[in-house]
Amino acid sequence: MTQIAILGFGNIGSGVAEMLTRNAAYIQEAAGDDIAVKYVLDKRDLTGSGYEDRAVKSMQEILCDPSVSIVCEMMGGTTPAFEYSLAALKAGKSVVTSNKAVVAKHGAELLQAAKENGVHYLYEASVGGGIPILHAFDDSLKGCRIDRIDGILNGTTNYILTRMHDCGSSFEDALDDAKRLGYAEADPTADVSGADTCRKICILAAVAWGKLVDSDTVYCEGITEMTDEHNAFAASCGGALKLVATAMQSNGAPSLSVSPCVVMSENPLASVKGVFNAVKVAAGDMGDLMFYGMGAGKFPTAGAVISDILAILRRGDETDSYRFFTNNTCELSAYGETKYAYCVKVKADRKTIDAMPFTYTLLKEENEDLYLLVEDMTKKELDALLCGMTVSMCMRAII
Amino acid sequence: MTQIAILGFGNIGSGVAEMLTRNAAYIQEAAGDDIAVKYVLDKRDLTGSGYEDRAVKSMQEILCDPSVSIVCEMMGGTTPAFEYSLAALKAGKSVVTSNKAVVAKHGAELLQAAKENGVHYLYEASVGGGIPILHAFDDSLKGCRIDRIDGILNGTTNYILTRMHDCGSSFEDALDDAKRLGYAEADPTADVSGADTCRKICILAAVAWGKLVDSDTVYCEGITEMTDEHNAFAASCGGALKLVATAMQSNGAPSLSVSPCVVMSENPLASVKGVFNAVKVAAGDMGDLMFYGMGAGKFPTAGAVISDILAILRRGDETDSYRFFTNNTCELSAYGETKYAYCVKVKADRKTIDAMPFTYTLLKEENEDLYLLVEDMTKKELDALLCGMTVSMCMRAII
Repeated sequence: MTQIAILGFGNIGSGVAEMLTRNAAYIQEAAGDDIAVKYVLDKRDLTGSGYEDRAVKSMQEILCDPSVSIVCEMMGGTTPAFEYSLAALKAGKSVVTSNKAVVAKHGAELLQAAKENGVHYLYEASVGGGIPILHAFDDSLKGCRIDRIDGILNGTTNYILTRMHDCGSSFEDALDDAKRLGYAEADPTADVSGADTCRKICILAAVAWGKLVDSDTVYCEGITEMTDEHNAFAASCGGALKLVATAMQSNGAPSLSVSPCVVMSENPLASVKGVFNAVKVAAGDMGDLMFYGMGAGKFPTAGAVISDILAILRRGDETDSYRFFTNNTCELSAYGETKYAYCVKVKADRKTIDAMPFTYTLLKEENEDLYLLVEDMTKKELDALLCGMTVSMCMRAII
Repeated sequence: MTQIAILGFGNIGSGVAEMLTRNAAYIQEAAGDDIAVKYVLDKRDLTGSGYEDRAVKSMQEILCDPSVSIVCEMMGGTTPAFEYSLAALKAGKSVVTSNKAVVAKHGAELLQAAKENGVHYLYEASVGGGIPILHAFDDSLKGCRIDRIDGILNGTTNYILTRMHDCGSSFEDALDDAKRLGYAEADPTADVSGADTCRKICILAAVAWGKLVDSDTVYCEGITEMTDEHNAFAASCGGALKLVATAMQSNGAPSLSVSPCVVMSENPLASVKGVFNAVKVAAGDMGDLMFYGMGAGKFPTAGAVISDILAILRRGDETDSYRFFTNNTCELSAYGETKYAYCVKVKADRKTIDAMPFTYTLLKEENEDLYLLVEDMTKKELDALLCGMTVSMCMRAII
């Protein structure tokens, strides 16, 4: 019998408890053991939850009970989630979390503590909800080079952009819809500003390359400025408007960015709609892979927590390098100096453009505007080349 | 140092050897150990391959060498691949294979032999090339119910159907293109008949539910009869024509089928183009997931073989239930008696259709034809209801 403690009995915490009961047969088969919830820590009164007999108010009680081997931290926020996680690891308990704020800020320190204490710190649920992307990175894809990651990592913003596309809604109306349907929180800043997406791409990159970048240093542009015009521009370019996070290694330096992009329709990310998330990975010789699924929600996220519990039971003492990363110490490649593809709408004739020192694809010609796709170019270079011309739109493109 | 033997030095076998060298640093880090090719068994002369010094002609030599712990079988065909695999397992060596014919026919027996000898029999590369779908089924998704699997599992047929769609080619012309580009073999029967897809869905279902269905008993319709008309029909229904394999459990009995389908555009499988493959999984509480990637090719497939080698090194002696299945012994649910969705083109007026005991979605009205989507209905029921009417098209639909 494996005994666990749940910290935070909100949406995801209660989802974990519910799924452990509902899927007990599958879990028993997979784990070769029963998993039981011994404690639930929450500030709230849990009367009527069915877990009142296991409710505790003090972390100390959990830390002092040697029968608890796994602590599931689903509190949200960094304090006291970080402190409790660290204390659990130091007490020789493995920790599983869905808390991307903690992982993005303190992940390296917690992984080091896990290593020193011979236990696990796992965080599948912190990125992409139910999509088993971190498992894939650190299992199946471990033997190959990861060149690049592009992700649609936030269901709220993808719902808003899908709605703007399908129904011609304004950003504000689409956001109101998202709130009404429970897809957006009362304060949606973390979502629409791109901050949530930014934390997640930092975690993905950390698992892929072993170094956690400080998310505050990453170029991050949200979707609050997006209008009909951006949507129409994306469509004219033959693509779809999406908030995309990209991570790659360029010239030995990590480069990460989050921004609204034109995703060209040949790219499978273009058809990721509504609250779904997807992560596309360029995996060296393995070619392009994409992982798609529910990026949020009670049960998909709780399922990811449970998959980590099962991974701990499967791996046992073998804790050394699994999903391990340290803090990044090298300079990030600056956004303006990193080579991306761009879609541009520029008033110009073909001759002027043909004379320029780049190759381009002409996507559309309309009135006096040319819609161009240029690849493998920095924003600085592009701005310099188009300087003095009337550029009415320029967005990063995902080809 | 882990010593391996490669059986069959064709496209994939030589790819494994090449990747082990090229990605040595990643593999060393992931395995915590070097992996070296000690033997290569092939009928051909390997002079000039760089492996002539390790070439052997007799399986006996490999079986008798206790330093070889893993045998990679990439021979193709079932004989002697099956016999060699069985002998290796009995000699206490783990076996990794890309050979779907062997897995679909003899998988249960080989897994049993592996179990009895405390070693692994792993086969990620037999389905979906580089897509880590079996890892996902037996790791991250192990703790949840799998309700249904829909897959585009054959790159050749998907290339042909994409070509027919994008360029208006006939089946024959698209097949010729596929041959010219090396996507189709000289004898493409196994691909275009659906037999290859059929074996793969049997393997996926076996991993998901623990029972291997005999692929010869599965309803299997290929794409050889597909014409412009089918393509146009799919487009009129708001979908794309794809060869889809479906597996589900209905009323306790497994039901599997392979057939050309209208994949509705909301379904992410609709945008899987060219030689790419994808597997969509309805995973109970986790919701819908999709795994997408290169379904074939030298390096993606070789990469999957290597991911299995790494899984063996990671799991060590813990061989018991990993990707284990036995032969299915219960009756399959018959195709005509299994509930699917269908797209239908029928000459009828709305009143007649409205009077029928089913609910439907009207997709399009053209001349005297109605394009209908009906859900959750057996082919038998549908045929009985539409009996006597002019049904010019009826295809399984994936919604």
